[in-house]
Amino acid sequence: MRIEIICTGDEVLTGKTVNTNYSHISRKLEEVGLSVRWGTTVGDDRDTLLEAFHVAAERADAVIVNGGLGPTVDDLSQEMAARAAGVNLVLNEYWLERIEVLFRRHQLVMQPNNRKQALLPATAQIIDNPIGTACGFELTIGRARFFFTPGVPKELFLMLEAELIPRLLARSGTTAVSRVKRFHSFGLGESHVDSLLEGITDLAPGGEVKLGFQSHFPQLETKLALRGSDAAQLARTMAPVEAEVRKRLGHFLVAEDDETLEGLILRDLKGKGASLSVVETFTGGRIAARLAQQPDADAVFCRGLVALAGSEIEAWLQLRDGSLTGGPLTEDALRDAARAALRATHSSYALVALADPASHADPASHAAPAARSPALWFAVATGDHVAVRSSQLRRFGDQEFLRAGAVELGLDSLRRFLRGLPVEEKNDFG
Amino acid sequence: MRIEIICTGDEVLTGKTVNTNYSHISRKLEEVGLSVRWGTTVGDDRDTLLEAFHVAAERADAVIVNGGLGPTVDDLSQEMAARAAGVNLVLNEYWLERIEVLFRRHQLVMQPNNRKQALLPATAQIIDNPIGTACGFELTIGRARFFFTPGVPKELFLMLEAELIPRLLARSGTTAVSRVKRFHSFGLGESHVDSLLEGITDLAPGGEVKLGFQSHFPQLETKLALRGSDAAQLARTMAPVEAEVRKRLGHFLVAEDDETLEGLILRDLKGKGASLSVVETFTGGRIAARLAQQPDADAVFCRGLVALAGSEIEAWLQLRDGSLTGGPLTEDALRDAARAALRATHSSYALVALADPASHADPASHAAPAARSPALWFAVATGDHVAVRSSQLRRFGDQEFLRAGAVELGLDSLRRFLRGLPVEEKNDFG
Repeated sequence: MRIEIICTGDEVLTGKTVNTNYSHISRKLEEVGLSVRWGTTVGDDRDTLLEAFHVAAERADAVIVNGGLGPTVDDLSQEMAARAAGVNLVLNEYWLERIEVLFRRHQLVMQPNNRKQALLPATAQIIDNPIGTACGFELTIGRARFFFTPGVPKELFLMLEAELIPRLLARSGTTAVSRVKRFHSFGLGESHVDSLLEGITDLAPGGEVKLGFQSHFPQLETKLALRGSDAAQLARTMAPVEAEVRKRLGHFLVAEDDETLEGLILRDLKGKGASLSVVETFTGGRIAARLAQQPDADAVFCRGLVALAGSEIEAWLQLRDGSLTGGPLTEDALRDAARAALRATHSSYALVALADPASHADPASHAAPAARSPALWFAVATGDHVAVRSSQLRRFGDQEFLRAGAVELGLDSLRRFLRGLPVEEKNDFG
Repeated sequence: MRIEIICTGDEVLTGKTVNTNYSHISRKLEEVGLSVRWGTTVGDDRDTLLEAFHVAAERADAVIVNGGLGPTVDDLSQEMAARAAGVNLVLNEYWLERIEVLFRRHQLVMQPNNRKQALLPATAQIIDNPIGTACGFELTIGRARFFFTPGVPKELFLMLEAELIPRLLARSGTTAVSRVKRFHSFGLGESHVDSLLEGITDLAPGGEVKLGFQSHFPQLETKLALRGSDAAQLARTMAPVEAEVRKRLGHFLVAEDDETLEGLILRDLKGKGASLSVVETFTGGRIAARLAQQPDADAVFCRGLVALAGSEIEAWLQLRDGSLTGGPLTEDALRDAARAALRATHSSYALVALADPASHADPASHAAPAARSPALWFAVATGDHVAVRSSQLRRFGDQEFLRAGAVELGLDSLRRFLRGLPVEEKNDFG
């Protein structure tokens, strides 16, 4: 079944409102195996609305129209639906009564323009909106079935689950399900992963697995999607592909599906009954923020120390003067700092993330990106065991890129340490 | 000029990614007086891409296509542009060289699939992308001029300002200039500000100033826009309106145009030769991060302390045991903590942002949002002067909303303190 979503309204068309209604509808349909083929956005304008309805009526089987059912003069969906279907607008006594009841219940006086919300195309069938005055409805235009929904998110979301999805599934006559598997990696660029995974979809016996990528810098998401009629069969078909993705991404795979890098770190630490402190400079508190906001953080996160000057860190951790300020950072200096962090915070684990002041990023500098990228140093420690990683991010190079990369390098160092993986490993960013 | 925006990519079509690129483009065009008439979304699929290009080629004068210029197999924009225009794909030696230089500069090995990014339709003219490997280009399909742009937001935004908008303005034959003035406020909701500013545009002598709002929670942006032929004249016409906006927003106005709340705080502190330390719990390091990442931070930002348990803060600040853990927080406890922060960090200013553990937000709780919203306490101190603010956010109420609101309340307390404004003032959120 070919589905189109038409979003109406000047607010959405002009970008004033980010179109989250669209993404919500599409995601929900995708989850039940219904795919949207076109998204269309038009304003509160009769000509473009009519044209959008006509175009969709020819190319789609089902069309969801969102917005334009309100009481004001710029709400045109019923009027243009009637015109596109070649029928009249008729006052629907049932819906008028519903509106009146709603107003009485909230002890409000119904405005004359609310009557307009009960005017529906003659051939429309009502789609119930249990919480609002905008009346949903469906009707046929051209060769497609159109489903009209209100723009108020709460009303839309409710009607989508309760009414629209069941009606669309029934209409599609399919019991198809879909399986989407997601892998989150850090350290390899999109084109590198694309090469690494070449030919991988051939491993699915008789299945057409679709491979896709989505960059959420600094992480990359690799997605496998497959449709069929039986969820268990899809899982079996996809299993060898999933296993091979895990193998090829190797140490760079940080999480799957809804898991997150920071969530897994906290789960690992909580499982060990461990506590964690973080010392950071260049990342300015962002490593702490990623960890401290997790649900498991209360049990694990002990202290975060943020400073920009090495001398402040020395004072805080009671390190000898000059160990972080006397020249370029060294592996030994990082080891000392990580051990000092354990002592100062009484945590069982410590992550230290520093930038070499000698190479410190200067946002005003016009030097080439590589020259502006600070040398980053990371140390993870527990008990007597300390691992150190150094890195200099060299791609692109604006400050936000460098900081986001540094945050991820810090968290990734901690993950690798906890999982017994090499903390330092050549990647595409360093 | 009739403009269409076509957004491509399965992530956007399926709703996985909320389409903020679309709203950004449309808003920016609107600001310079160019209006978008249609928005279209299609996936990484040859047939629907081709159809979308053909439909737009007939109904629009200018078409902006976003996405699909990457190196991977699901990036199809160049291929389908060539097919729609009826021309071949040709390797563009200039762009290939550009890609190679970019890879060499970052000391990376170019993957074979990056060559694909230099394949352009034979009739294409390059639109420079100074920071990425995806090549922007324009060409004619049917009766419309098409402008192809990369999906990476940073690259898109840069090219939109530097290349696309000038080209579209030139093509639209308009020599008009526009003036856009932006005010950033915190603490008042959109409908409240809308009421406050009623009638304000009448103050422009003979000018048609357009008033608009954009919510960037927790801040609200109020925008004034005016078009004409002479920039100096526009500035004069808009001046009385701008002055009145400043007056009516009063203490809630935090910044204008490209200024930011945190940028102004650091500028103020730097101007005083002051240093600042921050102690935070519920905000988990996000207040420190907002401040420490500013260009002026090196001169000002001293230490950030992050912890979740009051006992850790007590130990750190050498407060007497129980002052932050013995019961609900009090104004006195906050005063003591702020003074202790000054002593412990040797900073001239301190901001303390705590959440009452007695009311701590529990993400697993099914209680009503108000019940899950922690009591927030803020103290700002310098020398003997301490100001305290307490607040409980009560709107909406998911964790991200509460944390973002708490970060802004903390920064706003500091701004108000530095500017000599009342630190506690009734607002629409508390």
